[in-house]
Amino acid sequence: MKRYDQIAGQNLDRLEYLSDGVFAIAVTLLVLDIKVPVSTAIQSESGLMQAFAALSPKLLTYFLSFITLGIFWVGHSAEFQYIKKSDRNVNWINLFFLLFVSVLPFTTAFLSAYITFRFAIILYWLNILLIGIMLYCNWSYADKHGFLSVAGAEKARIGKAIRRRILTGQSLYAFGTLLCWISPYLSIAVIFIVQLSYAFGLFSKSPRTNLPS
Amino acid sequence: MKRYDQIAGQNLDRLEYLSDGVFAIAVTLLVLDIKVPVSTAIQSESGLMQAFAALSPKLLTYFLSFITLGIFWVGHSAEFQYIKKSDRNVNWINLFFLLFVSVLPFTTAFLSAYITFRFAIILYWLNILLIGIMLYCNWSYADKHGFLSVAGAEKARIGKAIRRRILTGQSLYAFGTLLCWISPYLSIAVIFIVQLSYAFGLFSKSPRTNLPS
Amino acid sequence: MKRYDQIAGQNLDRLEYLSDGVFAIAVTLLVLDIKVPVSTAIQSESGLMQAFAALSPKLLTYFLSFITLGIFWVGHSAEFQYIKKSDRNVNWINLFFLLFVSVLPFTTAFLSAYITFRFAIILYWLNILLIGIMLYCNWSYADKHGFLSVAGAEKARIGKAIRRRILTGQSLYAFGTLLCWISPYLSIAVIFIVQLSYAFGLFSKSPRTNLPS
Amino acid sequence: MKRYDQIAGQNLDRLEYLSDGVFAIAVTLLVLDIKVPVSTAIQSESGLMQAFAALSPKLLTYFLSFITLGIFWVGHSAEFQYIKKSDRNVNWINLFFLLFVSVLPFTTAFLSAYITFRFAIILYWLNILLIGIMLYCNWSYADKHGFLSVAGAEKARIGKAIRRRILTGQSLYAFGTLLCWISPYLSIAVIFIVQLSYAFGLFSKSPRTNLPS
Repeated sequence: MKRYDQIAGQNLDRLEYLSDGVFAIAVTLLVLDIKVPVSTAIQSESGLMQAFAALSPKLLTYFLSFITLGIFWVGHSAEFQYIKKSDRNVNWINLFFLLFVSVLPFTTAFLSAYITFRFAIILYWLNILLIGIMLYCNWSYADKHGFLSVAGAEKARIGKAIRRRILTGQSLYAFGTLLCWISPYLSIAVIFIVQLSYAFGLFSKSPRTNLPS
Repeated sequence: MKRYDQIAGQNLDRLEYLSDGVFAIAVTLLVLDIKVPVSTAIQSESGLMQAFAALSPKLLTYFLSFITLGIFWVGHSAEFQYIKKSDRNVNWINLFFLLFVSVLPFTTAFLSAYITFRFAIILYWLNILLIGIMLYCNWSYADKHGFLSVAGAEKARIGKAIRRRILTGQSLYAFGTLLCWISPYLSIAVIFIVQLSYAFGLFSKSPRTNLPS
Repeated sequence: MKRYDQIAGQNLDRLEYLSDGVFAIAVTLLVLDIKVPVSTAIQSESGLMQAFAALSPKLLTYFLSFITLGIFWVGHSAEFQYIKKSDRNVNWINLFFLLFVSVLPFTTAFLSAYITFRFAIILYWLNILLIGIMLYCNWSYADKHGFLSVAGAEKARIGKAIRRRILTGQSLYAFGTLLCWISPYLSIAVIFIVQLSYAFGLFSKSPRTNLPS
Repeated sequence: MKRYDQIAGQNLDRLEYLSDGVFAIAVTLLVLDIKVPVSTAIQSESGLMQAFAALSPKLLTYFLSFITLGIFWVGHSAEFQYIKKSDRNVNWINLFFLLFVSVLPFTTAFLSAYITFRFAIILYWLNILLIGIMLYCNWSYADKHGFLSVAGAEKARIGKAIRRRILTGQSLYAFGTLLCWISPYLSIAVIFIVQLSYAFGLFSKSPRTNLPS
């Protein structure tokens, strides 16, 4: 008789649909935390502009979390370019990855409500750390069990790039978070700069070299 | 003339997209029930930590329901690995499956608000039971109507594994629910342990045997 | 020079992903209207059961709308089994179809809040009518412009089945709605029975005849 | 060693799933802003009709934003018909595109709450402008880096049509927005007419000419 564990979790397409769905929703749910200011108190254009300006911590944390999710989505997508098989454990590693992704709208709202509190920053960082750990485990597990489409020196080079990216990113986040003992704003500023530098790799030299797809 | 019923419901891809979409949303909606504590009353780091700690029943039921949905998503995905045809009845069995999946965020919120009430636990269990029944029906119907990609002894072995998994799981959930007559907390603890043991089959011996895909 | 209108809207896959996404969300958003009762007033198991029973109009309209969306999703999926090309007009017909689909959670919430009002029933019916009209237009347009994968007698038979299904369904909904001048409850009961009879075609004779896929 | 930037972002399918997911959710979230009127004050059919009529600014802005998102979805889908390769920059351009798409439900709610304020109209227009800029960048970048599936005169013709469409649309939106210095209602009316003329290109001469797919 087949064990159920041998049957479950081999459908990579489903895993990718589910992941993209969760990312799409997490990214869009974030915006629900930005509430339109109540209209009774607002009488003039300048009053409305002030009310909008008062939303800036929410807009900032929204932007921050969108970039965060974008970075991890790109990372997830990069790994699955080379993962060509899966088993139930790959599914569960990814489900825990998605668990921490779907919690980010909460820790973001928490951070934007308590932006001057160390605890809120640490909680936010912990969330990012857990997402990073699952992403690292995902690659390691797939590598160890022969689920990759690349091999030999190619695999070593790609694996090194993927692992180093996660470790560098997480080190910078950890450093930024530690700064909250000096000042929460400094902490958020550093995390923000780290993320923008990833996203606006956009304007870096274009990586046109062909890679095995 | 063709009957409409002969035309409808043959597109398996669409059914899988819809299912993954519903799962992705149900999983992410759960987090909307975790509200950020109101900020006026909170003045210190320790005050914020206490406010966060007060969210623990919500966080616990969130985690519980995420795992529940994960288990059923893996189960659904496992079945559709072998289902290669469909008709309108397969679609409607799955729509009812998704109906009960999309209701879970409600029964979860209900449970987390009334965690000491037997009725809330029984309602939650009933929801899980209905999801399980539809999953069981899905396989039985596909099997009976020749929609599977496997046959003979292979089909028997896979079918037995899939059916046994559902029956074992549901028996354990029913047992856990019965314990609510002793104590609601005991009940939830047992359900929780059952689910973790499924999810952390993660650390069990790896099922690397190849299966027909 | 190419006109933009000749370029846009030829990607059927994208249209199907978008549609399934909107259906998945519409179906799941419905559940957000079912609020967990406030806990302070509830002291006993029987009190909780009564509070749950008070949710029954919401649960009923939720179920009603889920089935409605299920019926139209199956209908949409059935049409696209035979639609193999598209242009920008197909895209816009479907965007309007999805507009009315995504409005259904609102008209459903409206109906469940004002279940004894004729206007709420008529509004709900109008929503269903508009969804039906777009679905009918979709098939007619695709047929007229040669976007179908079937031809000749085959096309005639399939087209007749699809059109008749929409017309029959809409006639029954219109009839049910008219009954609201006698009694709103009668009206909803008839609409409900019509929908269940579609969904539980589930237990009708199985349509196993092979069709061109 | 491979640079991470050379590895990331080559999976076009994932990018399309994510985009369709975000559009599907943004479109459906818009409806959450339309709240069912509170029932205690409403006693008669005519009272309910008046309460519904009072929702008309919300319904109007909902419709407006649905059409907006529809136009950009069609535009995005049109570009990706010809984009056959990608790199991390394509991903980030699209993530910023999706950032501005997912913010639209907020700027829409803001506009519907402050429909007579210039600032609300300008904010809404700014959002549309940013979406348009990213869509323009997306095509330019893909063109410049040889990611298109068409070449030569064909590419020039298609590129000209796509670029002209964005520039024409954005010019009309900018013109409509400028009118808010005369009257906010005039401004919204003009934007609305521009959008309907796009959507109801539906009834224009059908573009049946075959194009390379």
